[in-house]
Amino acid sequence: MAIAERTAETTWEGALASGRGTITGHSGAIDALPVTWAARTEKPGGLTSPEELAAAAHSSCFAMALSLTLGEHKLRPDQLQVSATVTLDAVDGVPTIVSSALSVRGRVSGVDAATFSSIVDEAAKLCPVSRLFAGTKITVAAELVTA
Amino acid sequence: MAIAERTAETTWEGALASGRGTITGHSGAIDALPVTWAARTEKPGGLTSPEELAAAAHSSCFAMALSLTLGEHKLRPDQLQVSATVTLDAVDGVPTIVSSALSVRGRVSGVDAATFSSIVDEAAKLCPVSRLFAGTKITVAAELVTA
Repeated sequence: MAIAERTAETTWEGALASGRGTITGHSGAIDALPVTWAARTEKPGGLTSPEELAAAAHSSCFAMALSLTLGEHKLRPDQLQVSATVTLDAVDGVPTIVSSALSVRGRVSGVDAATFSSIVDEAAKLCPVSRLFAGTKITVAAELVTA
Repeated sequence: MAIAERTAETTWEGALASGRGTITGHSGAIDALPVTWAARTEKPGGLTSPEELAAAAHSSCFAMALSLTLGEHKLRPDQLQVSATVTLDAVDGVPTIVSSALSVRGRVSGVDAATFSSIVDEAAKLCPVSRLFAGTKITVAAELVTA
């Protein structure tokens, strides 16, 4: 049996430029979120997009991977803040997800900045969504905040 | 300038098994969605997860790619329903996103099932999130509903 299977569904009506869709996740946490091509590629205007959802997947997965990896080093994070910025750009004229830029800020006791940074690198190798983004450029900036 | 840049952030507190996080997207559409490891890997209990968010990214991206591809064939979809199921499984002991299973149901006039199916295949090659999942197993089941 798999560790997890999760389903989400989009209902779309109309042409790309003039149409609109709604996204619903089976957990119930995401319910009929509206999406449009204009909001995806111009100003979001309060609407999510595939790139924002991919960034949300990456940041949450990375935070969990880092929490796990810190634990393997007998460290427990007071707080981790993981931001992911996903970029869609034209490659040979085709819209392509080209990068995910991670910024990690950790408040963790009992570790120095160099060790924290090497643990962040370990987490990057472990995180399933980082491995999904393996064909893109992933950058990770890490900062340790001491209490 | 890129076509789109979208950012989401996760704040996580504590160890993996006992800790919890919240996910916020900069658009405002995703606001402090709670996540836990237990909800990710056992019953969701109303909480989203990296896999559900990745499924949401895939289904919404694919719906847009299919709407575009239909338009290139002078077809306009009345409605597309695109479901994506993302599976996390252990590969050599490491949690890995192994597949995304898409199910596409289209209500489109002026097209036969074989042509619709070939247009769905074109969309799969175009969709940026499908290309992100290229290292996993992607399956696409297509059904044309005639009005």
